[in-house]
Formats: sequence, C-alpha cells, structure tokens
Amino acid sequence: MSRLLAVDLAKSYRLLNHGPTVLVSCAAGERSNVMAAAWAMPLDFDPPKVAVVIDKATYSRELIEASGEFVLNVPCRAQAAEVLRAGGADGRRVDKFAHSGLSRLPSLRVGAPRVDGCIAYLECRVISEPENESRYDLFIGEVVAAEADAEVFADGHWRFDDDAKRSLHYIAGGAFFATGEAFEVEK
Amino acid sequence: MSRLLAVDLAKSYRLLNHGPTVLVSCAAGERSNVMAAAWAMPLDFDPPKVAVVIDKATYSRELIEASGEFVLNVPCRAQAAEVLRAGGADGRRVDKFAHSGLSRLPSLRVGAPRVDGCIAYLECRVISEPENESRYDLFIGEVVAAEADAEVFADGHWRFDDDAKRSLHYIAGGAFFATGEAFEVEK
Repeated sequence: MSRLLAVDLAKSYRLLNHGPTVLVSCAAGERSNVMAAAWAMPLDFDPPKVAVVIDKATYSRELIEASGEFVLNVPCRAQAAEVLRAGGADGRRVDKFAHSGLSRLPSLRVGAPRVDGCIAYLECRVISEPENESRYDLFIGEVVAAEADAEVFADGHWRFDDDAKRSLHYIAGGAFFATGEAFEVEK
Repeated sequence: MSRLLAVDLAKSYRLLNHGPTVLVSCAAGERSNVMAAAWAMPLDFDPPKVAVVIDKATYSRELIEASGEFVLNVPCRAQAAEVLRAGGADGRRVDKFAHSGLSRLPSLRVGAPRVDGCIAYLECRVISEPENESRYDLFIGEVVAAEADAEVFADGHWRFDDDAKRSLHYIAGGAFFATGEAFEVEK
C-alpha cells in the first residue's frame, strides 16, 4: 500500500499544475460516484481553489449539488483502464466504483470518498456559483485537504521514477499520454 | 517553417484536453503582450469555449479587458526557455515578445497576435463574465479559429514523433514535463 503524506495546502496547486486528468469522486448520504474529468485546473494558490467541469447530465452533478463536496483524485498509468471505465457508464445505473474496478478510501475532511491507489488527492468544498454551474457546468471548489503518494510527490515536487505511477493526460477514445520526461531550463 | 492546418472548431478542445501549458497572447491597439499560463482548460465542445486564469496584476489583463480577445498558443519543448521568460517579466516595462525571444504571427480572426513556432493556436473572444473576472481572475473565451502544426496534430489527434515538438506541462521554477508516451487501453 502506498504511503500518503499531507501536502501543504498552499502548495496543493502543484498537484494539478501540469494538467493531469483526474477522477472526481463524490457522495451524498449513502450514494457515491466517481467520474473521469480532463477539464480541471487550479484556480488560486492560497486559499487554494480549483475549477472543474461537471456536466448537467451526470449523476456526479446531482450528488455534488446535494453535498457541496467533491474530491479530485490524480490517477496513475496503472489505473488507466479503470479511468477509462469511470469515464463511461452512468452512475445511476451501475455502481461506478465496482464497474470501474476502483475502491473507495475515506477522505480526511469531506464526506465524499477518495479513490484508492491514486497518487494525489485534493478534497474540496464547493464555493457556490449558481450562474457558472448552470451556464457553463463549471464548479469552483476550495481545497480543504491534500495528500499525495510519498513515492511520487515530495517537498512540493513530482518525481515520476516508476512509470506505472506517472500521471495521465486523456486524449480521446481509449488513448492517453503519460506525463513525460522532466527537464529544467534557465532563464 | 511549420505548415499550419485548420482544426475543426468542434474538435479544437483536443488541442487542450491533455492539459498543456499555454502562452496567452493579446493586443489592444498598438500594444501587445504574451504571458505563460498553466491554468487553462477546455470548457465546452460546440461552440468551443475555454477557461483561463489571467491575474489582475498583469499587463495582459489590461489588454484583454480592452480588446475582448486573446489567443491560447500551445508551445513546444523547443520553446521551453522562451516560455519560462514569458512567465517572468512585466509587459509594462519590457516588450515581452522581444524579452522572451518570441515572434508575433498574425491571427486569422482576432486582432491579438499569435506566437510563432507554437504547435497549436486557439483564437478566442472573451465571453464577458465580470463576476468571474473580478472574483477569480477567470476568463471565459469562445474559440473562433483554431490551427495546428500539421506535423504534430492531424485528424483530431496529436502525434509527438519529434521530441522538440512535444507540448509542455509547467511545474515550477524552470522545471517542466514534456508530454510523454501515448498509449491505448481497452474498456
């Protein structure tokens, strides 16, 4: 099992800064769901905020509107098939966790579950912006807790030594990019 | 010189779907500027929209508010040092294009220039949302023209055969990831 370490909230934007595809997990009462989302980004440093697109037609939308919470989970290459399945089925018809082969992990600060085996977690509370939500399907969340897999994220930096733990960038169909080579340039 | 081909507007989200860092270019009258932005994402398919964070303190913000236009340029690994420089200096004090070593290229549908040598371009008109702009520095744009380098994007898909033309994912300091290996999974 991976060892999760707390990420300083003011540095939590680093978990999303490189644009990985995420899994959005949510719950309301006994109901919970997970969906894949390529359209998510940091929105502010401190207090940290994120923006994510949650389509009106989704079951996740219903649960997030009911609970005002969600988690952005950063999945890794080893989970790509599960991410693809989580991007497909309808959570009203099937248990998306079981359908995708993903397991729930309790969160630290929100009722929504996290997705086991991911390499980073941003637990979020919705900052209500009804116009954005209805007009653009755009949700804004404040990050209230963040953790990452100590093997791949430490001291505010990703270290993708293990290819199976590289983050993902969704293209279309069943196609992804893995996060690639790290390099430095000088000004 | 790269050969640019039009990208079907309804497929233009594919240029940003994998979360690359972009250069935002803009102009108002004779003044123009370019800045780096890691916080940009697609917001809708058709008509295509994008969301991008433009800080209040930036010169770009002033020009985009004056003109209601911007271009999201997708730079490549060969331009990483230029992207880093474009993320630094203040456009009110220096010509950021000259400072960064970047050149202007005329756009097709907007007055803002494009950045020469990038691998994709999304020309955008601001959809005015004053609350988002003032509260979150969040700008929403409708994509009115899109082109990509035919060598790396064709038929709606990226093909990064040339490492120098891989897109970038900014981390912090002078550190980037290149977009990595493409792979397919089955449901």
